[in-house]
Amino acid sequence: MVGSSSDRVFIECVPNFSEGRRPEVVAEIVTAIASVEGVRILDYSSDAAHNRSVVTLIGPPGPVVEAAFRGIARARDLIDMRTHEGEHPRLGATDVVPFVPIAGATMSQCVELAVALGERVGRELEIPVYLYEEAATCPERRNLADIRRGEYEGLFEKITKPEWSPDFGPSVVHPTAGATVIGARLPLIAFNVNLTTSDLNVAKKIAQAVRASSGGLAYVKALDVLLNDRNVAQVSMNLVNYRRTPIPRVMEMVRREAARWGVGVLESELIGLVPLDAVLDAAAYYLQLPKLDRSQVIEAGLWE
Amino acid sequence: MVGSSSDRVFIECVPNFSEGRRPEVVAEIVTAIASVEGVRILDYSSDAAHNRSVVTLIGPPGPVVEAAFRGIARARDLIDMRTHEGEHPRLGATDVVPFVPIAGATMSQCVELAVALGERVGRELEIPVYLYEEAATCPERRNLADIRRGEYEGLFEKITKPEWSPDFGPSVVHPTAGATVIGARLPLIAFNVNLTTSDLNVAKKIAQAVRASSGGLAYVKALDVLLNDRNVAQVSMNLVNYRRTPIPRVMEMVRREAARWGVGVLESELIGLVPLDAVLDAAAYYLQLPKLDRSQVIEAGLWE
Repeated sequence: MVGSSSDRVFIECVPNFSEGRRPEVVAEIVTAIASVEGVRILDYSSDAAHNRSVVTLIGPPGPVVEAAFRGIARARDLIDMRTHEGEHPRLGATDVVPFVPIAGATMSQCVELAVALGERVGRELEIPVYLYEEAATCPERRNLADIRRGEYEGLFEKITKPEWSPDFGPSVVHPTAGATVIGARLPLIAFNVNLTTSDLNVAKKIAQAVRASSGGLAYVKALDVLLNDRNVAQVSMNLVNYRRTPIPRVMEMVRREAARWGVGVLESELIGLVPLDAVLDAAAYYLQLPKLDRSQVIEAGLWE
Repeated sequence: MVGSSSDRVFIECVPNFSEGRRPEVVAEIVTAIASVEGVRILDYSSDAAHNRSVVTLIGPPGPVVEAAFRGIARARDLIDMRTHEGEHPRLGATDVVPFVPIAGATMSQCVELAVALGERVGRELEIPVYLYEEAATCPERRNLADIRRGEYEGLFEKITKPEWSPDFGPSVVHPTAGATVIGARLPLIAFNVNLTTSDLNVAKKIAQAVRASSGGLAYVKALDVLLNDRNVAQVSMNLVNYRRTPIPRVMEMVRREAARWGVGVLESELIGLVPLDAVLDAAAYYLQLPKLDRSQVIEAGLWE
């Protein structure tokens, strides 16, 4: 009755659909997802050039899986991959469905949800399913880009190879819905730092210093970008594991590297949604709190 | 149906009851509060020396007022001020009831709730009510200590003076329940900074520099404390308006003043609950984000 037990679990799910030009179709898919009690849609957006839409939903595990299933089923009926064109690589009408652990959830729960959804999509909708990232059944299927290589058009041949036999569903491409990739991953954090210079070369040097691929921090991807309208050089980053490589450590490394070129930080940007833990970690780091727990945040009591 | 409108409002309420020695009585009061649908009890704790208990509850405005009323009614029946003893100053069985704006709520909404609850307590329970802080009806009643001066025992005479006529309810003390102080205030943040020294004199100098009463930051109260078990000097602070005097600005001033004496910060502590906005402000300050809004926090979607 009383007390702050935190046993309610919430999962985020971010299905990507191969339709970004017909808003009425996107609306039907979103409506199907939103029809599940207990699920909240945080955001959805469509990109016409990519011909693709991304929906962000949140809720308890059971309802989130049901909502994702309804979205996939609706997309199967409304999208025809045989005539689909767009700049973004894709395999199917519902292209990729990651489950993301948030309040109270673990990664292994998200893997279980991915497996359960994949099994049902394969069986009931007859769409071949590949599991990726944390839910992958072998190392070759961890990386989404590897699974998607060849895209819908190339899948008809690829799926016949033993090493690309689907994890669930038929071993033939669904003619209109293609195939769907389902998995589990941590939230991505899009973090950009704008510099007190317009010299793109400085941003490039900093990006090289901080990103994993050239010897920097393990879970950072980084690029240099020039903001033309403001004539400001930017280090544009994706933090793919904020638990192991937290935002403040990235920020301090960028500051240090910028100082090496006599440049400062003008401001930074967090794009899109960010998990509460990542913000708490940043506050704790700079305030020298040994620990700042979500149980200390008044509002967190609202979802516990 | 879709989108992230944030029109759900949540209020925190922190009633203080003059009973801290009979757990079964405290349990009955807490049960009465928790019986209201939609209200969540975040915490409650009793202090035997103070003979006092503090309950922290949260919920939408209507349910929170109803829950506070039920707690006050139950305390009136179970606590007898004529025999109450304890170290903490107090006026009544339910001593003080602040409403605190959190997710989506404004201070003026909290003032309205305080007035509504005060009116009902005066009328239905026949307990005299004083409004304080942001809900005060005159400057002399803003400060809780001024209202409470003389305590329960002194109230029988004090209440007969025109300037201490209650805001609601009868102009006579309720024999067993005394009087109740109801109002609205911002969340208090208890923030301590431990220094890399055992010299209490340094903590004293820093406390003097940062606190409002000796010329420091407007909404900071500060004391020097020696943590005997660790031989560490501490600056112990209450931030009474974290919106106007945010945590990171206090932290940086403490760091700067400590450096003036050749001392560093060992660690800091946030005691008890803290509003999400205060944490977001700290992260934004140090990460140089122009703005970090709760709408960017994934989990905040759960209570919107």
